[in-house]
Amino acid sequence: MSDIAILTEADLRRAVTLGAPVLAAVEEAFRLLASGKVIMPPILSMEIAEANGEVDVKTAYLPGFDHFAIKVSPGFFDNPKLGLPSLNGLMILFSAKTGLVTALLLDNGYLTDIRTAAAGAIATKYLAPKKIEAAAVLGTGAQARLQIIAAHQMRPFSRVLVWGRDRARAEACAEDIAAALKINTEAVPDAAAAVAAAQLVVTATSARKPILRAEWLHKGMHITAMGADQAGKNEIDPRAVALADLYVCDRVSQASALGELRAARAATLMNGTNPPELGAIVAGTHPGRTSETAITICDLTGTGAQDTAIASYAFAAAQKLGIGAKIKA
Amino acid sequence: MSDIAILTEADLRRAVTLGAPVLAAVEEAFRLLASGKVIMPPILSMEIAEANGEVDVKTAYLPGFDHFAIKVSPGFFDNPKLGLPSLNGLMILFSAKTGLVTALLLDNGYLTDIRTAAAGAIATKYLAPKKIEAAAVLGTGAQARLQIIAAHQMRPFSRVLVWGRDRARAEACAEDIAAALKINTEAVPDAAAAVAAAQLVVTATSARKPILRAEWLHKGMHITAMGADQAGKNEIDPRAVALADLYVCDRVSQASALGELRAARAATLMNGTNPPELGAIVAGTHPGRTSETAITICDLTGTGAQDTAIASYAFAAAQKLGIGAKIKA
Repeated sequence: MSDIAILTEADLRRAVTLGAPVLAAVEEAFRLLASGKVIMPPILSMEIAEANGEVDVKTAYLPGFDHFAIKVSPGFFDNPKLGLPSLNGLMILFSAKTGLVTALLLDNGYLTDIRTAAAGAIATKYLAPKKIEAAAVLGTGAQARLQIIAAHQMRPFSRVLVWGRDRARAEACAEDIAAALKINTEAVPDAAAAVAAAQLVVTATSARKPILRAEWLHKGMHITAMGADQAGKNEIDPRAVALADLYVCDRVSQASALGELRAARAATLMNGTNPPELGAIVAGTHPGRTSETAITICDLTGTGAQDTAIASYAFAAAQKLGIGAKIKA
Repeated sequence: MSDIAILTEADLRRAVTLGAPVLAAVEEAFRLLASGKVIMPPILSMEIAEANGEVDVKTAYLPGFDHFAIKVSPGFFDNPKLGLPSLNGLMILFSAKTGLVTALLLDNGYLTDIRTAAAGAIATKYLAPKKIEAAAVLGTGAQARLQIIAAHQMRPFSRVLVWGRDRARAEACAEDIAAALKINTEAVPDAAAAVAAAQLVVTATSARKPILRAEWLHKGMHITAMGADQAGKNEIDPRAVALADLYVCDRVSQASALGELRAARAATLMNGTNPPELGAIVAGTHPGRTSETAITICDLTGTGAQDTAIASYAFAAAQKLGIGAKIKA
């Protein structure tokens, strides 16, 4: 009936890189989220326990956008035993006028990686202290690398400390970040020491018990917690969430079900509060950080608004470069 | 990373027709639904009011199946003004072991049409009186045709009465059914007369107020109501739902939110009941119709289980015929 563009992971890696235009696209998604005009239904989630797998579907309609994306993210955690990555998936871009399929973005999770790192950079831009000498990351996976690389575009810190349960993986992560940013990085054995030395801390793990303790909070720091995206996950000590001068999340409805806010409320903390969303700070309707010495936390669960933003950006970028195949369908 | 099969609507129309194998595949989905082992999360639904559009996402994991489908169904109701169909969409087939994308079924809603008609046929098989001389259909769209064509495979009735608000459309529908089934059909101006003459009645409209009244119920009839799939829709007089000897639905959680059961309960009827699901009758754990004179109603909202069944069937059928393209992704 109409032409559908097909973009493979290789196509998308050519068209989309973690630079200023992508960060601006994701920032705009947060700004729009604060307008109250975004339509973003609850995440569809299905667990397939017998395969140690799950699949999430996210979407959002952003007013003024020509398209909306539907993203399907499977996570099958026995895949590494088969030599396959755990996380995969695709995004489908639809016309927001007719509902026709415009493009299939067969990204195997690449665009999710990028938009997730971009959200961390936006949190850094709006919430971190102005002056950051050292950043720390707890976690050693793909997001540990990407979060730091993205945040560095907002605050050009000169040093990175990497902590992970597995020392060899922490060292590999530190080396990769050093190679990407040409700055000093170090794998450290002690998470507390890493946090003590840093003004920006990113947690990027699948922890189910807190890895960052309330006693470690210190003046003039910002924490971006991006690992928890399921009811069982929890990276930040609930007392830390309550003690921070400002707790912000990407979406209250999601953070209270899937993020650090869920764990804090389960610990009977933060129950009387309705915390601000990152979008309100981007849009300027909430002041955000009010002093260099404040302690701020941003809890990111990942939103369909980011998916529509990155998929729209990726499609436009690929079109401009003449990348991708077409199919009559 | 791996090969993905791409099947267009034309491919799928070649591979999948409304015959016994498809009916058996959908019947099996209902049987499995009754086992309690199917994982079927709530439908993700997003309305885009400013484009008079909506999009629904359905999925289900069927135990023993190699794949699960995620179906995205956009409905944009101003499309006919642009010369485009209102309903579109695609199904994506994933490995149930690894979550990798196996196939993209770019069906523009064709497989949904087929699996929806097949569900009506299964309702007919298990719930309609044994002997049906005449069937009636209220509605004149694609499903009005397909429901009757599918039901005829289960009960070879010799006459069909078609009623619709638009007489010309009813006549066209009657002619199409006559051509397909080689039996007598007639467009009739009076819905009550059509129902009075029929032992099988299918309602296939987007009505928001009942089109079938309780006074029209008569002994020895079965009604399949397949139009209501949204909270605002309602084809059957709530009193008819309560008066029938047996009310059955495809999924109680869906029918009570989107189907005739919702409207009945809104009218303070059927509130104390937990009606049986069609799968229980297919599986033999509920007796279903117990006499030729009983009045039965089956309320179909459409399930992700049907989608996984039809997508799995379509992929296997296309593979067998060597149909479709492949892309490395």
